[in-house]
Amino acid sequence: MNHEPEKQPKSQKLDGQEVAKHNNDSDCWVIIHGKAYDVTEFKEEHPGGKQIILKWAGKDATETYDPIHPPDTLDKFLEQSKHLGEVNMDTVQQDEAQEDPDELERQERIKRMPILEQCYNLMDFEAVARRVMKKTAWAYYSSGADDEITMRENHSAYHKIWFRPRVLVDVEKIDLSTTMLGSKVDIPFYVTATALGKLGNPEGEVILTRGARKHNVIQMIPTLASCSFDEIVDAKQGDQTQWLQLYVNKDRAITKRIVEHAEKRGCKGLFITVDAPQLGRREKDMRSKFSDVGSNVQDTGGDNVDRSQGAARAISSFIDPALSWKDIPWFLSITKMPILLKGVQRVEDVIRAIEAGVQGVVLSNHGGRQLDFARSGIEVLAEVMPVLRERGWENRIEIYVDGGVRRATDIIKALCLGATAVGIGRPFLYAMSAYGLPGVDRAMQLLKDEMEMNMRLIGCSKVEQLNPTLVDTRGLSLHSTTVPADTLGLGIYDPLVTPQEKARL
Amino acid sequence: MNHEPEKQPKSQKLDGQEVAKHNNDSDCWVIIHGKAYDVTEFKEEHPGGKQIILKWAGKDATETYDPIHPPDTLDKFLEQSKHLGEVNMDTVQQDEAQEDPDELERQERIKRMPILEQCYNLMDFEAVARRVMKKTAWAYYSSGADDEITMRENHSAYHKIWFRPRVLVDVEKIDLSTTMLGSKVDIPFYVTATALGKLGNPEGEVILTRGARKHNVIQMIPTLASCSFDEIVDAKQGDQTQWLQLYVNKDRAITKRIVEHAEKRGCKGLFITVDAPQLGRREKDMRSKFSDVGSNVQDTGGDNVDRSQGAARAISSFIDPALSWKDIPWFLSITKMPILLKGVQRVEDVIRAIEAGVQGVVLSNHGGRQLDFARSGIEVLAEVMPVLRERGWENRIEIYVDGGVRRATDIIKALCLGATAVGIGRPFLYAMSAYGLPGVDRAMQLLKDEMEMNMRLIGCSKVEQLNPTLVDTRGLSLHSTTVPADTLGLGIYDPLVTPQEKARL
Amino acid sequence: MNHEPEKQPKSQKLDGQEVAKHNNDSDCWVIIHGKAYDVTEFKEEHPGGKQIILKWAGKDATETYDPIHPPDTLDKFLEQSKHLGEVNMDTVQQDEAQEDPDELERQERIKRMPILEQCYNLMDFEAVARRVMKKTAWAYYSSGADDEITMRENHSAYHKIWFRPRVLVDVEKIDLSTTMLGSKVDIPFYVTATALGKLGNPEGEVILTRGARKHNVIQMIPTLASCSFDEIVDAKQGDQTQWLQLYVNKDRAITKRIVEHAEKRGCKGLFITVDAPQLGRREKDMRSKFSDVGSNVQDTGGDNVDRSQGAARAISSFIDPALSWKDIPWFLSITKMPILLKGVQRVEDVIRAIEAGVQGVVLSNHGGRQLDFARSGIEVLAEVMPVLRERGWENRIEIYVDGGVRRATDIIKALCLGATAVGIGRPFLYAMSAYGLPGVDRAMQLLKDEMEMNMRLIGCSKVEQLNPTLVDTRGLSLHSTTVPADTLGLGIYDPLVTPQEKARL
Amino acid sequence: MNHEPEKQPKSQKLDGQEVAKHNNDSDCWVIIHGKAYDVTEFKEEHPGGKQIILKWAGKDATETYDPIHPPDTLDKFLEQSKHLGEVNMDTVQQDEAQEDPDELERQERIKRMPILEQCYNLMDFEAVARRVMKKTAWAYYSSGADDEITMRENHSAYHKIWFRPRVLVDVEKIDLSTTMLGSKVDIPFYVTATALGKLGNPEGEVILTRGARKHNVIQMIPTLASCSFDEIVDAKQGDQTQWLQLYVNKDRAITKRIVEHAEKRGCKGLFITVDAPQLGRREKDMRSKFSDVGSNVQDTGGDNVDRSQGAARAISSFIDPALSWKDIPWFLSITKMPILLKGVQRVEDVIRAIEAGVQGVVLSNHGGRQLDFARSGIEVLAEVMPVLRERGWENRIEIYVDGGVRRATDIIKALCLGATAVGIGRPFLYAMSAYGLPGVDRAMQLLKDEMEMNMRLIGCSKVEQLNPTLVDTRGLSLHSTTVPADTLGLGIYDPLVTPQEKARL
Repeated sequence: MNHEPEKQPKSQKLDGQEVAKHNNDSDCWVIIHGKAYDVTEFKEEHPGGKQIILKWAGKDATETYDPIHPPDTLDKFLEQSKHLGEVNMDTVQQDEAQEDPDELERQERIKRMPILEQCYNLMDFEAVARRVMKKTAWAYYSSGADDEITMRENHSAYHKIWFRPRVLVDVEKIDLSTTMLGSKVDIPFYVTATALGKLGNPEGEVILTRGARKHNVIQMIPTLASCSFDEIVDAKQGDQTQWLQLYVNKDRAITKRIVEHAEKRGCKGLFITVDAPQLGRREKDMRSKFSDVGSNVQDTGGDNVDRSQGAARAISSFIDPALSWKDIPWFLSITKMPILLKGVQRVEDVIRAIEAGVQGVVLSNHGGRQLDFARSGIEVLAEVMPVLRERGWENRIEIYVDGGVRRATDIIKALCLGATAVGIGRPFLYAMSAYGLPGVDRAMQLLKDEMEMNMRLIGCSKVEQLNPTLVDTRGLSLHSTTVPADTLGLGIYDPLVTPQEKARL
Repeated sequence: MNHEPEKQPKSQKLDGQEVAKHNNDSDCWVIIHGKAYDVTEFKEEHPGGKQIILKWAGKDATETYDPIHPPDTLDKFLEQSKHLGEVNMDTVQQDEAQEDPDELERQERIKRMPILEQCYNLMDFEAVARRVMKKTAWAYYSSGADDEITMRENHSAYHKIWFRPRVLVDVEKIDLSTTMLGSKVDIPFYVTATALGKLGNPEGEVILTRGARKHNVIQMIPTLASCSFDEIVDAKQGDQTQWLQLYVNKDRAITKRIVEHAEKRGCKGLFITVDAPQLGRREKDMRSKFSDVGSNVQDTGGDNVDRSQGAARAISSFIDPALSWKDIPWFLSITKMPILLKGVQRVEDVIRAIEAGVQGVVLSNHGGRQLDFARSGIEVLAEVMPVLRERGWENRIEIYVDGGVRRATDIIKALCLGATAVGIGRPFLYAMSAYGLPGVDRAMQLLKDEMEMNMRLIGCSKVEQLNPTLVDTRGLSLHSTTVPADTLGLGIYDPLVTPQEKARL
Repeated sequence: MNHEPEKQPKSQKLDGQEVAKHNNDSDCWVIIHGKAYDVTEFKEEHPGGKQIILKWAGKDATETYDPIHPPDTLDKFLEQSKHLGEVNMDTVQQDEAQEDPDELERQERIKRMPILEQCYNLMDFEAVARRVMKKTAWAYYSSGADDEITMRENHSAYHKIWFRPRVLVDVEKIDLSTTMLGSKVDIPFYVTATALGKLGNPEGEVILTRGARKHNVIQMIPTLASCSFDEIVDAKQGDQTQWLQLYVNKDRAITKRIVEHAEKRGCKGLFITVDAPQLGRREKDMRSKFSDVGSNVQDTGGDNVDRSQGAARAISSFIDPALSWKDIPWFLSITKMPILLKGVQRVEDVIRAIEAGVQGVVLSNHGGRQLDFARSGIEVLAEVMPVLRERGWENRIEIYVDGGVRRATDIIKALCLGATAVGIGRPFLYAMSAYGLPGVDRAMQLLKDEMEMNMRLIGCSKVEQLNPTLVDTRGLSLHSTTVPADTLGLGIYDPLVTPQEKARL
Repeated sequence: MNHEPEKQPKSQKLDGQEVAKHNNDSDCWVIIHGKAYDVTEFKEEHPGGKQIILKWAGKDATETYDPIHPPDTLDKFLEQSKHLGEVNMDTVQQDEAQEDPDELERQERIKRMPILEQCYNLMDFEAVARRVMKKTAWAYYSSGADDEITMRENHSAYHKIWFRPRVLVDVEKIDLSTTMLGSKVDIPFYVTATALGKLGNPEGEVILTRGARKHNVIQMIPTLASCSFDEIVDAKQGDQTQWLQLYVNKDRAITKRIVEHAEKRGCKGLFITVDAPQLGRREKDMRSKFSDVGSNVQDTGGDNVDRSQGAARAISSFIDPALSWKDIPWFLSITKMPILLKGVQRVEDVIRAIEAGVQGVVLSNHGGRQLDFARSGIEVLAEVMPVLRERGWENRIEIYVDGGVRRATDIIKALCLGATAVGIGRPFLYAMSAYGLPGVDRAMQLLKDEMEMNMRLIGCSKVEQLNPTLVDTRGLSLHSTTVPADTLGLGIYDPLVTPQEKARL
């Protein structure tokens, strides 16, 4: 704890070669955004483990640092005495790009990217993003908990809901607009909160802000954004509506400061995440991390730290696992923003939420990233609404659903079942990662086009006409698997074929 | 808008080289069936977009033009002043067949086509057609809405219906004939309306007319045929029955003219399409269009027009999305033909149709080309009939079903459940595209052979004996998906195998 | 009709080269088992079509002829004047084995056949047989009706039945014996009737007779055996029990003769097939036939005969499709053998069978070879028994089930549900085709071994202890298919993987 | 029986070359752990067949012998006169490693094994073990009965159970500890009994003892361990709890001795296996055995012995198939250890067990290794508990479940449904086989990590809070298979694709 870095005169930038000497466990500097920092001590308590820091000891770590850390991280967490000042970047040796063959292949794939107009639906963006994103970024966005059963069920559940469309209804003019927590929007979806936007695009979440503006939909600002909260708010225009997603800090003073600041900056809704007392294990993400440092794994010797926890867990240690129903009155006391609970997963808790006086819930399983085998939001919605209607409570709160929405038909299904609107997360991240703002723009436009058509085809000209008689949900709550395959029997079956071509001459 | 083409003396044919000069955005001629047209202005409002026209600027566009446009299109939509007169085709330079490798491969596949006798069922024609049809034609015929879930469900639903056959019934003589809207037919199916027949075969829909004649079944004439309505009617022989499928025009005068003309020409039924206020997005079709013009995509620059909408949407802009139940009395007033609503999809609308006084409905989802996740016609039928029987209304209208019929057992299932007959579309298109009239003939004959046998095996000698006790539909209305696959678990399972061969010596 | 063959002196064998001259459509001889026959006229009415005869015109057709035709065919169907007498076989030119590459490969596969001891279950024999049988023989045995859904469902249905085994029961001694129509057998299965045994093994059905003898189980003799009925009866030993399967001839006198003869020869049961008024279309079989004559297909010119109907339909034209319940009293009057109806498929017909006074039924769909989407016998059994028990009729007849039995657990399931025994067909054919009698022997022994063990494990020491509480059939009657696959969604999912190996050095 | 081996002077070790002479059927010695044995007579009654012994005639058989035979086998089963004394191992010719190519490949795979830290869940160990274990060992561990349907259903059943998690519960501190038969443990699972541990690791079951100690969980000692019972007990430390799994010997005196010895050595529970009156047929194991001696198969001539029964059946001939409920009072009389029945599979038998006075049951199907189509333990649990609760009997016994547990969520599901704890077998064997004790350690730690997190996410801080309202089991008891695949229909479907990359330049 008493290692003293040599101080450089303030008036003079640090020399890269000098920095490069501090490249080991007992003397470790890194360069970030052109400034040097002494992290010799800090690295021991780095939430992401010290290995990842040592990898950059004496070097410029900006590119890796950026997406994971909001801009004010160093000021918050590293004492000022360790801020060593600016570095003359001309003197910093650039990594002799000992080119990663994976990265070279990725660059090749980027060159052959389909043009934006070839994307016809939200799945298309994911297909492109998978090919062009950095492996670790892809792993962070695309991973889910455990076996990723819930993550996949989220969309799959929509495939169990079928339509009972009406015909011969005048559907010349279609009005997709609706009102969410008092804000008028053009189409009943919102951009839900997702972390670490800069992993996919160097500009980060502000791109989503601009996309949401263009299509007049609401953006929910994530606590774990790569951009700072203020950057994202600054990016909004006019009366654009933003909400705040909140991970509650163990230190309630910090939480209070965040909430009050958000209200002051004009946020129109506070969504408290309740399904993440601990951020989930996402093995795909962990595995991706591992191979990222795979080359020097054998050198780590007796190191017992589990370096392979992925990005999410490192950045979430502040979240309070003791958050409980008892905290709700306090939240109601510190803000006038409508409060909603994000991550409710059973009817008993929806009722309790109403009794607790909040204005809404999001039926969500956190995109399948927390508890595997949690049911899809849409299934929970189908369980919740009949109970509320029986009590006459269906209008006492607004109910949102997120997870797995990929088609306008998914949105329509949720609204038929009683949701006010749906949240969409990953698809916009993928669109942003692959094509930037034009990608987000097109993704939203495709949803509008799909929804206008499908409203016509289901026989409704306004969203308030959507109702439960328009859907057939009999298969929704059945979690069937089939009996394990008859391996031998299937293996010996000689399958039917269609006519064969003549042999080539 | 005031660009004036140079006029050639009427007495003299245009020279190809002269036409070829008008090959750009501001001066654009095309040749169709030996005549030149100035489409400089028209191209801006071309429903299919101007790019596709520019591709043929100064050239002979006949081959691409033909299947999409009924013969009277130019007279209807291009003012006479733009009709430039005949071209001396000897002077037109033929496209230096810079042979498309896809097309060359297709020609190879055509050479190796199985002979007709190798087709043993309706699926076989589709298998052959997929290999020998032009890619864009295949895409237009084979595509469905969104994820093509409904399109596939249509046939799949029949696989949920099982038989409870009777034995020891005298089935020596089988009579498949029945009566549909007063017309006696040999077997209870009809050729339903499908658009753009010339995409599959240069002669178009008249081939289906001839096939229907040979097997004494009814043909439903499509509004969007490649042949003109009169060509198709002219192709019928003797007392052959035809029906008319109608897309209702925003201009009811046009619609009235079409209906009155059809009645005058002897059509015996008017099927008003009610499931298509807007023609569906079919992404396979859109994607196929895109790659068709892929080579010069980068030149299109700032062009914002979405060229990739596929054939269907371009030709359907006239359809009236405001069509509603209020229009039905008017239709009843303008014709004596029986009126049926094609595309009804829930029991409430069947009841309303009966109350509205029409003579029948077709339970249909438009071959899965409109609203994805619409239920199959056969499933809706199983929902509808018990309700009608409860009211004693089962004989007040004729109920037809289309979508997914591929086997005689499918027909039998529909009749057991209460349908008068079924409509079959794509399979005959595929038979026609692969083998022309002989293909259609064989396809129909195969259905007859299958049906005669299966009537015997189910224990019925006449179609009126078919009844609900002969089928087990318990699984029909269950839209199950299985839980997302246990990827890790399945991946590590070491499957059982059968005995291995000895190693080769 | 007045073509006169040159007669050879009776005392002198015909010369092969002389026979070879009669090799065309208007003059056509063939050699079978060393004798020549003039089939010039007969070929026009040959049930299998004349093409297959012309292929052998002037040549020795024995090998192809044998499996399809019972030994007395020529005497029955070809008038004596066309029997030309013996041929000096030394003078017959053997086909310059213009070796079929498929056949050469098959011979190779035969050399590498697994030894018999490598077969551990009935599926294994099928796996081997598929590799070593002639293609056409395999196609005949393995094919089913239409899409072969019922054929596969037959075994698949057993996979929907699960056990509720008892523990702590003394199962030291297991007794598998039972009584079927008064005959004591060692294990409750019988060899059911299957046609054309010589396709799989040159000795034909007598191999099954010997196998059945060794294991003291009953053989049901098929009407369409390759061996004659008497050959099969002659092959039995001691008090071995045989039953007769009967296709009823349009000419009841023939049927009567067959029944009386069977009774005289000691058959202990008459199983009248009631599910085959017409033998099914089996497309795999038809397709196999087609390619068999593929090489000269183009020469057939205007020939309109559909040559590709497969073996079954050719040999079955005598079957009476008018057979009905009215015929049952007559059958009861002509024999004292117990009469059973084979192919009953719904509870209503089981009740009618009891009322008609027969001694039993076989719940069967003909191995999935007749009506596709007929339900499995085991499913029908589960429907039938509760109805019979409600009426107290469960002991008025014996109920058998066939189709899809491959494991002793399948037998146990059927007995738990109320069957007296099960019929097994194809598995023994495959065992016989691959390994002859030792194969049949081992197949039966494996079933005994499996059954003894599984009786222990379910907690029953005698077959009469098997009862419905030992099985869970809740899933049995559900004919579910899943929603069509989410093609795009599944295609973009990045599946979880297990740890990867290090790269090779 | 009167063949007399030449005796060597006791004072002098046997010479390897001398031993090597006794290498045939009529004179057969083998070397095991440095001593020679005359097995000429014994081999005829060797439970595993004599072939496997003859393979090692005159040679050192230790490596093959060890995992299958507990250390005291030779003393127990081979009379002393056949123990020939020590061999001078320097004189024994080592097998000129005519290296098995499979083994060489396996050695290669071992070199490329992932490091332990790359295993993130229990499936990962299985994936690695499959690649690095000897083929026969893998086959023995991984195989199940018949079609392995039950074996796979065991885990698959957990995938039909979904969570209904609570939110906003204080889950800061998670306590996973519970009490099993009076012993306090850190987490509610135990290491269940599995046979032949040395097949996977030369040290055998004591590795599991050490792993269990480290994580304070209970180990159930198997009757068929590779280590002797005392070796396993000796390996425990402090107050570590062990239970005994018991196969009941036909000779009850032996059984009594075993039970009394176990009690004396401190075992805290006696688990009598009741689902294995005969050890199951496991075809994967049998098949693996076969090919193991495949090279000299053709030499075996008329040998009729079925050599291919796999390891399990050979070693289990002593198990008493007559064991029944009548034996329970006797067991209660000979020990004070709690007695539990392992392998109960239906509610009727649970009730009977309570009435018989035992302290618990394990709902188990023996890892799917006995009766195929036995239901999963977790499904039986869901059937059992409501019946017990109705009677108020739910606390009269402890109920355990084993089979298919791979995730902490599986453990939580079982506890929600009423189990005291779950048994886990194969996963620890695989971890041990791949990585030894560190593997077992990490596997257990992973379960703890998973469970702590998932307790938080389901909203419970202690295991006693787990209850049935937290799970949705509606799909659990449905044994659905889907209708056999629509082979032709699926084969001709042209699947949707996502945007294609541009061609490479």
